[in-house]
Amino acid sequence: MSETAEIGPNRYGKQAIRLVKVVRGAEHHAVRDLTVGVTLEGDFAASYTDADNSLVIATDTMKNTVYAFAPEHLTGSIEAFGLVLGRHFVEAPQVERATVTIAEHGWERLVGAHGPAPDAFRRSGAATRTAAASVSRGGEAVESGVTDLVVMKTTRSAFSGFPRDRYTTLAETSDRLLATKVTSTWRHAAADVDWETSYAAVLATLLEVFADHHSESVQHSIWLMGRAILDRNPGIDEVRMRLPNLHHWLIDMAPFGGASAGEVFVATTEPHGLIEATVRRGTPAP
Amino acid sequence: MSETAEIGPNRYGKQAIRLVKVVRGAEHHAVRDLTVGVTLEGDFAASYTDADNSLVIATDTMKNTVYAFAPEHLTGSIEAFGLVLGRHFVEAPQVERATVTIAEHGWERLVGAHGPAPDAFRRSGAATRTAAASVSRGGEAVESGVTDLVVMKTTRSAFSGFPRDRYTTLAETSDRLLATKVTSTWRHAAADVDWETSYAAVLATLLEVFADHHSESVQHSIWLMGRAILDRNPGIDEVRMRLPNLHHWLIDMAPFGGASAGEVFVATTEPHGLIEATVRRGTPAP
Amino acid sequence: MSETAEIGPNRYGKQAIRLVKVVRGAEHHAVRDLTVGVTLEGDFAASYTDADNSLVIATDTMKNTVYAFAPEHLTGSIEAFGLVLGRHFVEAPQVERATVTIAEHGWERLVGAHGPAPDAFRRSGAATRTAAASVSRGGEAVESGVTDLVVMKTTRSAFSGFPRDRYTTLAETSDRLLATKVTSTWRHAAADVDWETSYAAVLATLLEVFADHHSESVQHSIWLMGRAILDRNPGIDEVRMRLPNLHHWLIDMAPFGGASAGEVFVATTEPHGLIEATVRRGTPAP
Amino acid sequence: MSETAEIGPNRYGKQAIRLVKVVRGAEHHAVRDLTVGVTLEGDFAASYTDADNSLVIATDTMKNTVYAFAPEHLTGSIEAFGLVLGRHFVEAPQVERATVTIAEHGWERLVGAHGPAPDAFRRSGAATRTAAASVSRGGEAVESGVTDLVVMKTTRSAFSGFPRDRYTTLAETSDRLLATKVTSTWRHAAADVDWETSYAAVLATLLEVFADHHSESVQHSIWLMGRAILDRNPGIDEVRMRLPNLHHWLIDMAPFGGASAGEVFVATTEPHGLIEATVRRGTPAP
Repeated sequence: MSETAEIGPNRYGKQAIRLVKVVRGAEHHAVRDLTVGVTLEGDFAASYTDADNSLVIATDTMKNTVYAFAPEHLTGSIEAFGLVLGRHFVEAPQVERATVTIAEHGWERLVGAHGPAPDAFRRSGAATRTAAASVSRGGEAVESGVTDLVVMKTTRSAFSGFPRDRYTTLAETSDRLLATKVTSTWRHAAADVDWETSYAAVLATLLEVFADHHSESVQHSIWLMGRAILDRNPGIDEVRMRLPNLHHWLIDMAPFGGASAGEVFVATTEPHGLIEATVRRGTPAP
Repeated sequence: MSETAEIGPNRYGKQAIRLVKVVRGAEHHAVRDLTVGVTLEGDFAASYTDADNSLVIATDTMKNTVYAFAPEHLTGSIEAFGLVLGRHFVEAPQVERATVTIAEHGWERLVGAHGPAPDAFRRSGAATRTAAASVSRGGEAVESGVTDLVVMKTTRSAFSGFPRDRYTTLAETSDRLLATKVTSTWRHAAADVDWETSYAAVLATLLEVFADHHSESVQHSIWLMGRAILDRNPGIDEVRMRLPNLHHWLIDMAPFGGASAGEVFVATTEPHGLIEATVRRGTPAP
Repeated sequence: MSETAEIGPNRYGKQAIRLVKVVRGAEHHAVRDLTVGVTLEGDFAASYTDADNSLVIATDTMKNTVYAFAPEHLTGSIEAFGLVLGRHFVEAPQVERATVTIAEHGWERLVGAHGPAPDAFRRSGAATRTAAASVSRGGEAVESGVTDLVVMKTTRSAFSGFPRDRYTTLAETSDRLLATKVTSTWRHAAADVDWETSYAAVLATLLEVFADHHSESVQHSIWLMGRAILDRNPGIDEVRMRLPNLHHWLIDMAPFGGASAGEVFVATTEPHGLIEATVRRGTPAP
Repeated sequence: MSETAEIGPNRYGKQAIRLVKVVRGAEHHAVRDLTVGVTLEGDFAASYTDADNSLVIATDTMKNTVYAFAPEHLTGSIEAFGLVLGRHFVEAPQVERATVTIAEHGWERLVGAHGPAPDAFRRSGAATRTAAASVSRGGEAVESGVTDLVVMKTTRSAFSGFPRDRYTTLAETSDRLLATKVTSTWRHAAADVDWETSYAAVLATLLEVFADHHSESVQHSIWLMGRAILDRNPGIDEVRMRLPNLHHWLIDMAPFGGASAGEVFVATTEPHGLIEATVRRGTPAP
């Protein structure tokens, strides 16, 4: 009966706030291009059960705030901008936690006939840097990340030794093509980090390990990348990875009179494997 | 240091398994069109840390299993099919939990010159029914749901009484256009339910309340719909709703010499509000 | 050399103009939901070669015009609204041709506890009605159409008798699953048509023929549908169809110990066949 | 009546053929990643009107042919591969024209701890190179192109001097942010070109002009880029450009007590302007 209905976990906010900031320097311009989301948790149950909006910060106000803060506060990393915004929103007493997520879309300066253009850019689209700043009364947590980072290994990738049942038809292989679109986030132990340096270091580690490793499975690849990120970056507590296995199937050339030299593949997206895991610092044995 | 790295929460599986089943009856055919996902949790840490695949059920095997089970087991609701698949996967001792998610894409029979066609169909695209069956050693949980259900109210929707700060420009309104794309899931108290009847009842309640209610906010709408679903469906424990606020802004006709009669709107998707909440049965006061 | 460069065919306009109109009747509301595009051709070469904007109607003005015309002129079919807009834009002497394309997104009235709701709707998403009105000094042309109409035949569809070369591996079949997403437009002989009646008649013919026919190929299906539309609708001159062949491949159950009873298929979108053709009235033999 | 129905212009083929080729060199691998489409025109009317498939090359065969040709023929540019495929398909006497369209998705080599990886790559996603080879009995035509090239100018972009009517509200501006996603194709005068060099030269010209020019409108930008491509590349006959105007609207900071320094914008995609034009070599005056 309805007397016993209640509101459980809930949150709300504004998503897909598109923000472009032009930094008009004396010599040349720079561009920042973000997609921002704001999510609040806190004392909002009455807005559901009693239609009482007196504590509901309008999502339109969140959007305005993001824009209004950009001139003064979007001067460095997206992590820093997210923290400033999160701290602002949590000032309202009804807000227990404010989470600000930001994706930064890269632009690179174009070169004209006489050198770098002061005011012209192209999107550098290969991957997107992300950040999530979560500010609560109890503290602050920052995750940095990357999404849409598509990588491939054309050898040194295997998958074998897996169990077989009556539904198993996949052949074991010591040499397959491995392709994935990496989404990863990593949690920082503190909120006062040189975010630019940290991001560059983590991404370099991730890519270097991917380049060098021999993969026995997507799981194995995740472990090697995640462990290396923790090893080389003491300020990072935990790495989360979400890797689809974007299967590339070898074309059988036999019907066409050709040998199948492991050369031509069909790239597919449906269906795909999906492997998600957290690599974290463990408790040392006593 | 790497000695202390470890694998935290992890899961893996196959997503986007597209399955169409043609039921060839004596008089006419029927069509089932599903997108299935399988996710396993369990004793898989060694596949990460030791490159040991001996317990890793291949995601290709999961896909095969879904197809192999369809002739015999996809004969009723997607909830039932998901449970059968989940129970199968959890038979492997290393699997602690198997979650099978299914979206069913609707098709309706076409009518020819002489009546209903025995073998021709069109997609009935307005919304998608979903199910998630989670089977673990400790028990079974089934959630039913709907996604991409786009609804609109052209009046009896207000938003006022919200707090104002220096970043607030939104006007209070007692009459706005409200549009949203509902994603909702509801958890059943048991796993032996007449799933078809239950789904129809919940969807009817959701739409009826949406049709009849006066909304003071998206939050308020969620509460009214969720509470009614619990009230009228004793077998449901909890309702989760995720409603974007797809803003429609009134066009100002004044520049064109026209009155703004609340008639013409621009539909937008960026940015959008996003309200997510759970409505659940509460503990009755003693 | 640049002395000999010139502007060839060119056109410009505004696309993706999202317009929702609420018709506030005494008893109940109605909703119109359109996506409109405006494209102009004419005397615009100087805007390219001489940076002379004196004849360039701003695309922002086009957008405003669409909104400004909606209260008075969006009272019937999208074809009629497109013609009114096209006639307006071609009044500017530099415009030789104005083409207005409109897609109408369907909504259906919700039913509440006490009957049809006066003000609540859900998207009826299965297919989208389209229109293109092209107005030039020489005359007017109207095309009506439909897009995203997904249909399937589970039998009475064959593909055989095609040529075989060394690269052909496809088996002949007398019974395959045929699925496609129809995009079709049909051109009217005149611009004073009962557009609603005409659209309903054409769509009914298309679906009825699809329901009843035996397909020897997608090409054959196009012919039967197109010819029937011309036969039954004397006011239509020409039908264009664009049908992807959305392959559904039969799952081989033999590895799992099951018979392949033509029952379980994988639905695919990549790659897909694509068949495009015009069916038109021919010149009768003398 | 149906006696007078006939098939008008028609074509068919296979789209979205995904092909990845791994070139396994002694020292390192290379990757080619293409999406290929094949379209045939010719003597196919009987397949529509008489259900006669005897001349209908199966689209499955087209797909097989693309894969079968890749080992030997995909060794250089996509233009060259397209021509080889087009010439093959037009060998069938019923084929009057074969058009092969190819998009190449870029990959760049990753660097490991000890230098460039022999076998690991990341997608370099910022823009996609395209080609269309059209082979008919009458000759061959090749177009090269680029798509999804997103560029922006933060100043030196104006739009003023346009006509004003009662629906015009857009202010004239001498300084706006200009952003677009370039799709361009350019037609070569011959089919024996150094395609790699030509592509690099055209893209460099396009970007250099974009970087350096002062834009009075999107039309003006198209002209300057197109003319420069023709000027500097005598082997190119014609340039086609399709540029959406991806509006960025300045945020009004006044309500928040800030000055509007032309600094913060909202990026939008709906609605957008769309400017399409051909720049071609003209006939010199006599």
